[in-house]
Amino acid sequence: MSIPVILDVDTGLDDACALLLAARHPDLDLRAVTCVAGNADVDQVVRNTLLVLAAAGRHDVAVARGASRPLLEPARAARHVHGEDGLGDLDHAALGLPAATGEVDQRHAVELLRDELLAAASSGERITLVPLAPLTNIALLLRTYPEVAKGLRRIVFMGGAAAVGNATAAAEFNIWHDPEAAAVVLDAARELEIPVTMYGLDVFYDVRVSRDEAVELLAVAAPATRLAGALVQAQCVKFGTPSATIGDAGAVCAVVDPAGLTTSPLAVHVELAGARTRGQTVVDRREWVGDLDHDPHGIPPTVVDVALAVD
Amino acid sequence: MSIPVILDVDTGLDDACALLLAARHPDLDLRAVTCVAGNADVDQVVRNTLLVLAAAGRHDVAVARGASRPLLEPARAARHVHGEDGLGDLDHAALGLPAATGEVDQRHAVELLRDELLAAASSGERITLVPLAPLTNIALLLRTYPEVAKGLRRIVFMGGAAAVGNATAAAEFNIWHDPEAAAVVLDAARELEIPVTMYGLDVFYDVRVSRDEAVELLAVAAPATRLAGALVQAQCVKFGTPSATIGDAGAVCAVVDPAGLTTSPLAVHVELAGARTRGQTVVDRREWVGDLDHDPHGIPPTVVDVALAVD
Amino acid sequence: MSIPVILDVDTGLDDACALLLAARHPDLDLRAVTCVAGNADVDQVVRNTLLVLAAAGRHDVAVARGASRPLLEPARAARHVHGEDGLGDLDHAALGLPAATGEVDQRHAVELLRDELLAAASSGERITLVPLAPLTNIALLLRTYPEVAKGLRRIVFMGGAAAVGNATAAAEFNIWHDPEAAAVVLDAARELEIPVTMYGLDVFYDVRVSRDEAVELLAVAAPATRLAGALVQAQCVKFGTPSATIGDAGAVCAVVDPAGLTTSPLAVHVELAGARTRGQTVVDRREWVGDLDHDPHGIPPTVVDVALAVD
Amino acid sequence: MSIPVILDVDTGLDDACALLLAARHPDLDLRAVTCVAGNADVDQVVRNTLLVLAAAGRHDVAVARGASRPLLEPARAARHVHGEDGLGDLDHAALGLPAATGEVDQRHAVELLRDELLAAASSGERITLVPLAPLTNIALLLRTYPEVAKGLRRIVFMGGAAAVGNATAAAEFNIWHDPEAAAVVLDAARELEIPVTMYGLDVFYDVRVSRDEAVELLAVAAPATRLAGALVQAQCVKFGTPSATIGDAGAVCAVVDPAGLTTSPLAVHVELAGARTRGQTVVDRREWVGDLDHDPHGIPPTVVDVALAVD
Ligand SMILES: [Ca+2]
Ligand SMILES: [Ca+2]
Ligand SMILES: [Ca+2]
Ligand SMILES: [Ca+2]
Repeated sequence: MSIPVILDVDTGLDDACALLLAARHPDLDLRAVTCVAGNADVDQVVRNTLLVLAAAGRHDVAVARGASRPLLEPARAARHVHGEDGLGDLDHAALGLPAATGEVDQRHAVELLRDELLAAASSGERITLVPLAPLTNIALLLRTYPEVAKGLRRIVFMGGAAAVGNATAAAEFNIWHDPEAAAVVLDAARELEIPVTMYGLDVFYDVRVSRDEAVELLAVAAPATRLAGALVQAQCVKFGTPSATIGDAGAVCAVVDPAGLTTSPLAVHVELAGARTRGQTVVDRREWVGDLDHDPHGIPPTVVDVALAVD
Repeated sequence: MSIPVILDVDTGLDDACALLLAARHPDLDLRAVTCVAGNADVDQVVRNTLLVLAAAGRHDVAVARGASRPLLEPARAARHVHGEDGLGDLDHAALGLPAATGEVDQRHAVELLRDELLAAASSGERITLVPLAPLTNIALLLRTYPEVAKGLRRIVFMGGAAAVGNATAAAEFNIWHDPEAAAVVLDAARELEIPVTMYGLDVFYDVRVSRDEAVELLAVAAPATRLAGALVQAQCVKFGTPSATIGDAGAVCAVVDPAGLTTSPLAVHVELAGARTRGQTVVDRREWVGDLDHDPHGIPPTVVDVALAVD
Repeated sequence: MSIPVILDVDTGLDDACALLLAARHPDLDLRAVTCVAGNADVDQVVRNTLLVLAAAGRHDVAVARGASRPLLEPARAARHVHGEDGLGDLDHAALGLPAATGEVDQRHAVELLRDELLAAASSGERITLVPLAPLTNIALLLRTYPEVAKGLRRIVFMGGAAAVGNATAAAEFNIWHDPEAAAVVLDAARELEIPVTMYGLDVFYDVRVSRDEAVELLAVAAPATRLAGALVQAQCVKFGTPSATIGDAGAVCAVVDPAGLTTSPLAVHVELAGARTRGQTVVDRREWVGDLDHDPHGIPPTVVDVALAVD
Repeated sequence: MSIPVILDVDTGLDDACALLLAARHPDLDLRAVTCVAGNADVDQVVRNTLLVLAAAGRHDVAVARGASRPLLEPARAARHVHGEDGLGDLDHAALGLPAATGEVDQRHAVELLRDELLAAASSGERITLVPLAPLTNIALLLRTYPEVAKGLRRIVFMGGAAAVGNATAAAEFNIWHDPEAAAVVLDAARELEIPVTMYGLDVFYDVRVSRDEAVELLAVAAPATRLAGALVQAQCVKFGTPSATIGDAGAVCAVVDPAGLTTSPLAVHVELAGARTRGQTVVDRREWVGDLDHDPHGIPPTVVDVALAVD
């Protein structure tokens, strides 16, 4: 039986890989995709998402536009990583990709998520939500419609880091991009008892595809496979490396094959106030907790399954 | 011609006065009321609001339930001010108030606001939004549906302080209750060019009704008037004072009679990170701005019409 | 009997007025002057201080060099206010001022302060310390040699604001220049039971000398009086105003004539962490303290006599 | 030729090991020891230090009392780790330790440090300063007497963590105990060009002595060796482990044998403002610095040799 999933994306090279995987994997039932500003502006994210789903032959999947900016931080696209179009500036015609004829859903992303999750709850299902982007949409969802929790199996998000950041020394890009949203989502998950898995930088760079494998993928007839090859190749070229991380797609793998990921249940806070640590996911990895009486007061932490290693 | 208004409330003694005024004043056209957690929990706020509108004979006004808690701060009711029921624990039967037979709208407060504001925009109207409570609903609205700005004439909110706070030395209750929401609303207003008037503690305590006037109101036949008298009397008794502030109702007065309020356009920030100033509205009242180069970087301020005196 | 005082200065136009007053006033016994970086760099401050004391005919007063920079903030001179030399770039020759032949004391300011205060304690005296600059020296003093408290009658400092700042919307220059030092001094004063009077922006601009009065002072034979006139005139010219604040000198007046100042004992914190409020003196002016349970935990406030009005 | 060193301690079980090592190692020339509040109150620290130096037969080493509390944080002893006397509550008589007949130096720790460092500078020497405690004394020293830098070869401090904390999830005890002092020391080291090595939690627990080795040490005639054995044994008993970290003594080893430690020059900040990260040493371990434009403004980082592994 396949696992019902919804992806929340800021497509994005690696979101594209994740979308292809979620759209084509036989063990996953992709119910909807919601879009948010992050790697690119939200309208570009919608276009990219429709294009990727078209390549995957999944015009049936509802795609909705969500928040056009973070709660408080200004929107900041990551063009230096993802190109002008957020998708590596690929030559779609040369790749022989089908046109993105899909229509965007008329509902806001938050409403599409609410409708899908409440429908799942009514039919006794539980959906796995996979945010691969700043958590703005999910924060708005959980604070406006907390009743959706009963349609959620769990949240597996790409973001954060137990050790070292990338956007800053301490913070990972998705969390740093909208720290308040991340703090809201963790706090709401604790309050609403939604299990959370954090697929962060501690494993993000460890799942890789080689440039040679990308070339093989490019030779396959199926457009989805060719697009996957092109996305990997684009990253190898951009960074001058012999392989590329599958990035966000790793979080989808973690849904398909939880055993492939080593996680620990750890207390996590999102730091909002630090001069140098804003957007850091503070993961408590202390073995000895004799100093807990020193811990600051305030919002309690959320116990999150933090991914620490991949097979 | 009357001014179309929507109130967002956490009824609350003084929200009740404001509701009565907005519901009965011939120059105001009360389109809807949305409820949020604050002085009381949101379900109590809905009940109180329906009761007050019933007393005002306004079963026609749509009332919607909104956020049950702030974005990040835990919900904290102010029972020490507003009583167990958030409305002064009045004896409704003794007051001869009609039953609250109104039904709560099936839409979330955010959706009711969106629908009313987009409808207004379509018909060429502009609605004045009057938040008298923590700004959670309005923050969720403006970040989920920024397009509602075209149906807004302005926002006149009760909250903040240019000088001294009440919840803490630096912060006023509504802002302190949900500082992130307040910061979101000010930032969104700047971005979406929505005029904002801040009716804060600098004037809040200056508009007062005496205990004698309350007794006169209690002798009037109309239930709305009797309720108003009872609300004022309850506060006089509670604080042992010969008069009570009309509180939130002053913000409604400011909509009816803008000339009664002295305001200045001043740059305002909501402080989120301070150890002692979290929730403070930092109002820049410097006459000489030669030191502006010292000012911190970051999110730009919003120019707000800050109420500094009342006639 | 005259009051023994020590001034800690960053001379500075208004420190110069204060020094002249302290050096010449019959009711004050100026024991020493310590210098710190602030309006100008510390070596310039030492030169300016020696020049002013020479004009006052007080070569006998020991002058020591102190901290060359704040604890954490970078040093930032206020040349736009105080001129290139920190003293209004006056023409000393034209004013007929005597040469600054005084020698700087070989001790560090912190040691001079320690020696004077311990000597006072030994002889049963209590000295009034009057910091008119960033509080770096005083913070280093009180944390290195807390035993000096027994030689201190009280601290009367120029700095802070109960209402509006000048360096930023929330912070006054001296506190903003070294917020950690200010926080240390207030906390040490609480711990060591040293009475503190805060002469801040709430009164700073209210004690003024007119341009006409300055012209009269310039016509007097005594160099100290002529210098005072020149300092006032320089400020009137700089800001294009018919009068100038005596600024820091007001804090010295408050020592000579405490009755001329209306103060209230209020709880004060120095905010260190705020994004917009760093360096603010958070003064608790709430009349009703029913909300004290909302107050943040952490370092307790210091009860300070805050100057709120001058006669 | 031996290396001249000064230790700054809060003795403390592991400071005691470090003192014994520094006092007895032929390659080290222990010039002085300064004491500060930390694991125990400063008077207890002085007593413990004199006792350890007596056991080491080093009555010749000057010991000075320093700061009795952190700059801003309240003093907080770690009795749960170090016992009531800060030294494991050992039975000194049973151990046959000599009496602590040494006298405490009459100078404040800050003055002893200044005198030793300026004397070294005059004679063309450079001293290695080894702080094993909260950095209060060193912060006061470097801001009061920055000229001591010319007598310093480098600072090798025990404190901080690149990965996980102990006092809190993010902060190591010494830094957390006085975060402002740590920030001052790093900033002063950058400004004064003093090389710094951070011996933090990333290696702290890796250098260990077994309980069996401790028993062997206890059988040796020399009191210093017996005391070392007793200190190790006390920790093994306290934590129920077959071995104990040598803790602070590892930082002394790093001075004797720099090759035994793998370090990397990394940018380090001390976070002061974070709600959950106050006292964290933010170590920038990013390989790819393409996101540096995202980094916050403010005080620049200090490049520190961070110990990441021990042989
Ligand atoms: Ca993504
Ligand atoms: Ca209200
Ligand atoms: Ca000054
Ligand atoms: Ca130690």
